[in-house]
Amino acid sequence: MSKAKVIVDPHFRTMDEIFSPNDKARLYDLVDVIWGKDEPMPDEAFLKALPSAEVVVSSMWHYGDVLDRADALRTIMTVSGAFPLTLDYEKCYQRYIRVLSAAPAFARQVAEMSLAMALDACREVSASDRAMRRGDELYLKESNLSSFMLFDQPVGFIGYGSIARALQPLLAPFNVTISVYDPWLGDGFLERNGVNPASFEEVMQQSKVIFVLAAPTKDNEAMISRHYLEMLQKNAVLVLMSRAHVVDFDAMTELVLEGRFKVATDVFPTEPLEADHPIRNAENAVLSAHRAGSIKEGLWEIGEMVVDDLEAVLQGLPPQRLQRAEPELSMRYALNTAKKPK
Amino acid sequence: MSKAKVIVDPHFRTMDEIFSPNDKARLYDLVDVIWGKDEPMPDEAFLKALPSAEVVVSSMWHYGDVLDRADALRTIMTVSGAFPLTLDYEKCYQRYIRVLSAAPAFARQVAEMSLAMALDACREVSASDRAMRRGDELYLKESNLSSFMLFDQPVGFIGYGSIARALQPLLAPFNVTISVYDPWLGDGFLERNGVNPASFEEVMQQSKVIFVLAAPTKDNEAMISRHYLEMLQKNAVLVLMSRAHVVDFDAMTELVLEGRFKVATDVFPTEPLEADHPIRNAENAVLSAHRAGSIKEGLWEIGEMVVDDLEAVLQGLPPQRLQRAEPELSMRYALNTAKKPK
Amino acid sequence: MSKAKVIVDPHFRTMDEIFSPNDKARLYDLVDVIWGKDEPMPDEAFLKALPSAEVVVSSMWHYGDVLDRADALRTIMTVSGAFPLTLDYEKCYQRYIRVLSAAPAFARQVAEMSLAMALDACREVSASDRAMRRGDELYLKESNLSSFMLFDQPVGFIGYGSIARALQPLLAPFNVTISVYDPWLGDGFLERNGVNPASFEEVMQQSKVIFVLAAPTKDNEAMISRHYLEMLQKNAVLVLMSRAHVVDFDAMTELVLEGRFKVATDVFPTEPLEADHPIRNAENAVLSAHRAGSIKEGLWEIGEMVVDDLEAVLQGLPPQRLQRAEPELSMRYALNTAKKPK
Amino acid sequence: MSKAKVIVDPHFRTMDEIFSPNDKARLYDLVDVIWGKDEPMPDEAFLKALPSAEVVVSSMWHYGDVLDRADALRTIMTVSGAFPLTLDYEKCYQRYIRVLSAAPAFARQVAEMSLAMALDACREVSASDRAMRRGDELYLKESNLSSFMLFDQPVGFIGYGSIARALQPLLAPFNVTISVYDPWLGDGFLERNGVNPASFEEVMQQSKVIFVLAAPTKDNEAMISRHYLEMLQKNAVLVLMSRAHVVDFDAMTELVLEGRFKVATDVFPTEPLEADHPIRNAENAVLSAHRAGSIKEGLWEIGEMVVDDLEAVLQGLPPQRLQRAEPELSMRYALNTAKKPK
Repeated sequence: MSKAKVIVDPHFRTMDEIFSPNDKARLYDLVDVIWGKDEPMPDEAFLKALPSAEVVVSSMWHYGDVLDRADALRTIMTVSGAFPLTLDYEKCYQRYIRVLSAAPAFARQVAEMSLAMALDACREVSASDRAMRRGDELYLKESNLSSFMLFDQPVGFIGYGSIARALQPLLAPFNVTISVYDPWLGDGFLERNGVNPASFEEVMQQSKVIFVLAAPTKDNEAMISRHYLEMLQKNAVLVLMSRAHVVDFDAMTELVLEGRFKVATDVFPTEPLEADHPIRNAENAVLSAHRAGSIKEGLWEIGEMVVDDLEAVLQGLPPQRLQRAEPELSMRYALNTAKKPK
Repeated sequence: MSKAKVIVDPHFRTMDEIFSPNDKARLYDLVDVIWGKDEPMPDEAFLKALPSAEVVVSSMWHYGDVLDRADALRTIMTVSGAFPLTLDYEKCYQRYIRVLSAAPAFARQVAEMSLAMALDACREVSASDRAMRRGDELYLKESNLSSFMLFDQPVGFIGYGSIARALQPLLAPFNVTISVYDPWLGDGFLERNGVNPASFEEVMQQSKVIFVLAAPTKDNEAMISRHYLEMLQKNAVLVLMSRAHVVDFDAMTELVLEGRFKVATDVFPTEPLEADHPIRNAENAVLSAHRAGSIKEGLWEIGEMVVDDLEAVLQGLPPQRLQRAEPELSMRYALNTAKKPK
Repeated sequence: MSKAKVIVDPHFRTMDEIFSPNDKARLYDLVDVIWGKDEPMPDEAFLKALPSAEVVVSSMWHYGDVLDRADALRTIMTVSGAFPLTLDYEKCYQRYIRVLSAAPAFARQVAEMSLAMALDACREVSASDRAMRRGDELYLKESNLSSFMLFDQPVGFIGYGSIARALQPLLAPFNVTISVYDPWLGDGFLERNGVNPASFEEVMQQSKVIFVLAAPTKDNEAMISRHYLEMLQKNAVLVLMSRAHVVDFDAMTELVLEGRFKVATDVFPTEPLEADHPIRNAENAVLSAHRAGSIKEGLWEIGEMVVDDLEAVLQGLPPQRLQRAEPELSMRYALNTAKKPK
Repeated sequence: MSKAKVIVDPHFRTMDEIFSPNDKARLYDLVDVIWGKDEPMPDEAFLKALPSAEVVVSSMWHYGDVLDRADALRTIMTVSGAFPLTLDYEKCYQRYIRVLSAAPAFARQVAEMSLAMALDACREVSASDRAMRRGDELYLKESNLSSFMLFDQPVGFIGYGSIARALQPLLAPFNVTISVYDPWLGDGFLERNGVNPASFEEVMQQSKVIFVLAAPTKDNEAMISRHYLEMLQKNAVLVLMSRAHVVDFDAMTELVLEGRFKVATDVFPTEPLEADHPIRNAENAVLSAHRAGSIKEGLWEIGEMVVDDLEAVLQGLPPQRLQRAEPELSMRYALNTAKKPK
């Protein structure tokens, strides 16, 4: 029996970045890999291969409006944490094509980094490390005047997607209560998942540590505005993990420099961040260069998920590990990247 | 009925440091507080009060060999994490005097900091924060070449006392396996507690993250010698939380500077550390100025424990929250502090 | 603004059985309820209401091939634990109609009962209770010769759906290892969920307690045949929770009467079970009259889920609490009920 | 070097009952076993061996006031769940002799049985099993009119000793809240252990499931009197696990027969229970013939703990696994057994 044809065009990622040696071997055993190179697949080659391909694995959809030729296609697997904004989802549903993303592969690694950065800000780990390097460190309780324990604190989540759900068990042993604002989820669902539904304002006002985990959408640009940032408790910790899109970054920077609250951020409005951006000098900030979701073990989980779900769909079973696009939501996401600096 | 007389002489700590306002009120309601000031209690006053005192609450035992006059004494509560080395334990047992320490009050705060520092080293949080401040940060996977996830790693504990037991549940959601070396505990006990007994050598060789949590004893000075440090896996993380006493700090510093492994340390051989100590410049070190166990919420737990156990012992019940001195072990501890710099 | 029209025809269930007073009030506030009575909705009324209905809530689909008239229909909510076998799923997908079931509402109640029955069989609770009523009970260790602790045992699951996933956390504190046979799920998925993938034979041979949780399909009738039943360990416990369909019930009864293993079963090939069925007298059986999934608090969870998901879909959001039909699997289920006795 | 001499006189237990083959081999390797037979050690032999014995392992202390001859004795290990009432504890403390009991060996097995019996009563497992054997069973929701889920219920503990602490994690996944009445423990201790301190009356009135786990003492005879039993909620479940001593058993039986609440009991005022005791016919009772703490795997844990702690004490370390007698409490326990029938 001939193997199923699968286009694999990871391009802004590379083959070896997403597939461990073991998963790469599984992939080639399982299917007839079309392309499978690190360079972007040329349009011509793509169009030629499309009619007989059962699955397309790619990091974006830059092939244009070509689904009418995709006669055998049943599944599009996106090896990124977001759904392509350039895909005609309506046509996908009409043609029974499932669109999947590798967002769950990022959940554990970003959740772990979220906790690491939150603990760093609460306990002032990197600030104190800098003091030791400067030679002006304080010792013992003198060094802890503005730090606090995460244990027993009220915690807030902005967004309750796969990262939040992976973070929740990491926080559980700290005996925190978690309030969640997520406009796409109902109270019943949140309560059954062991978190407290809350308004955006409640989360901002009542939490000591707030994790910003909301994917960027057309509706939430700069949602965390100066008005809401001013509601934060003195010394609260804002952990910004999803995208700078959702926050008024200038207002946040100003307020952090004024000492109103602490921030730990993995994302910036432009990346690389301007060399003279004032947040680079903020003492009560923890700064991380978009590092949370790009660690080797995590990236290899993408490939593991892809091969696992290829196994499933080629047996006539539903995919199990990648995340499915929701028809209602796919077109509500916003462009999911930081700006390039000019 | 007259209240029990209790000497309260916290001196290297202060009353307000160990008692929250609420617990201080409980204390004064419950017992007749003798002294209760921040300055050290003068010997004369102590000797005068001792015969009728039922409990002594102090941070050390600098009163000399006076237990023969302690006719009413049943309990000595030490408001520190260690047992006094200057106490005649044999006499205490003969006179039915229980000796207690506040070590458990430090468990949660030090465990939390241990995780914070381990995650910082694994994910290179403070190193990357420093890069952003210097302006030479790398982004995305380029920034993660030597970092790794804590998830799924083999973890080692040197010592399985109250801090280790508080750290274990914080590590549980990361799906790590924990190997423990503790010469004072049997295999059966460790296995029942869900950790794997191991030799010191096994812990050093097989763990990716090693937490050094052993209290300093007469037997473990510089136990973590160059010989054992050289066994560490490339890029492993050594988290030094208990005391510098247990490690050959010079060898450790040298090897860290050579890039053999990473270290996260809260303790140093002299405190304050010499201004020119080479570890201050080690890129793969996370440095913390003895900050793990001196956070306000934690210190107030000492007072809460003291008042809770005063309630118990004055009702004729055993103490429940402070830790008891073990006759076999009390004299095996070593002087529990860093040197003062010359 | 006029409310959305929703047909509510729970018939083999009743309105008050699935809706708590509070959820019933929420339902009537939220939508324009068509029908909403306990008697089956007459075809004529259904056909008249269908064109303008946005949602149909029913326990089965006995309306025939009428989807062509369902112009506004977007969601079919089945207030039962199974998907209707009489529905044209292909047409549903073409028309963007989501088909949902209330299976998750049964997960906690059936999982709890599964543990209750497993513990009963392991520790011989009901057998010993019967002995006390007969007056021939043995005491202490004499009474425990064939009982065993669940702690530390190898456990097997046949099927890893919503009940299994709700049972897993209930078993976690018993320190069991769980092996799973589920032909619809891949190894990677199972491992990520903390269970060990295994073949059917391995589960039968190596487990001390086996939970049969697989939904009846066209492929699994009497899958647990005499051949496999004879593989069970002496004194093992077979907990039969899903449907008698999946087991050779006669062979099982015979082997249990021979004392080969123990069984705890909530389901029978005919219900009510024949009065003279020999399993009624088996000493090492725990017998339960299809009671696991029909407890009041559980049934009300159906209504809670229905109203929660009506709120979601009427806001243009995906449903969150009910389970979605998978195109690949919907037609592979078998008739999901015990026979009526003749 | 000669081995330490240890008297091993398990008598109401047997050697093979408490030592697995493996632990028995460890025992004989480790120490010079004196006696080591199943029959009671004769007084003469005991007195002869006592002066050179470092440890006595026995199930009771029926040797009289002979501690003055116990020159080498450092540890008394009781292979039962209780401390002997016939021992001179004051003399033990004066002579630095630690008195230990094997109570922790019973914790897991009794906790597991406590949950089994509670679930049985909540979900009416054995009552429904009896109905199937009689042939008058009801099916589905008709069978569940008086049953309820354990999930989400308010639970009460009377006593928070080793069994309660082993039961707490088994209950955790059911999302229950636990209120505890224990007159020997302070509020702070209970709160830190994640349970709510409560008065006896509050536990009786507010809980849906109440676990009676208190050891019998001189103060708690029939503490659970008719007055308090009448406070129970309609249909509440009383799980009696420790001793019948703590309850007015006649009143309890009467009220259960009246249908006021349900009971699950492992203990009785006389054992064997009178053949005509009316509780034998109570439909809403689960009856167990003192079976919770005498299962083989559990009994072998006694021997494992004994050998583990012999290893520890013979190395000059504190015992780790057996429980220590508290000077304040040892003499407050009551005779720890049911009456023999006349």
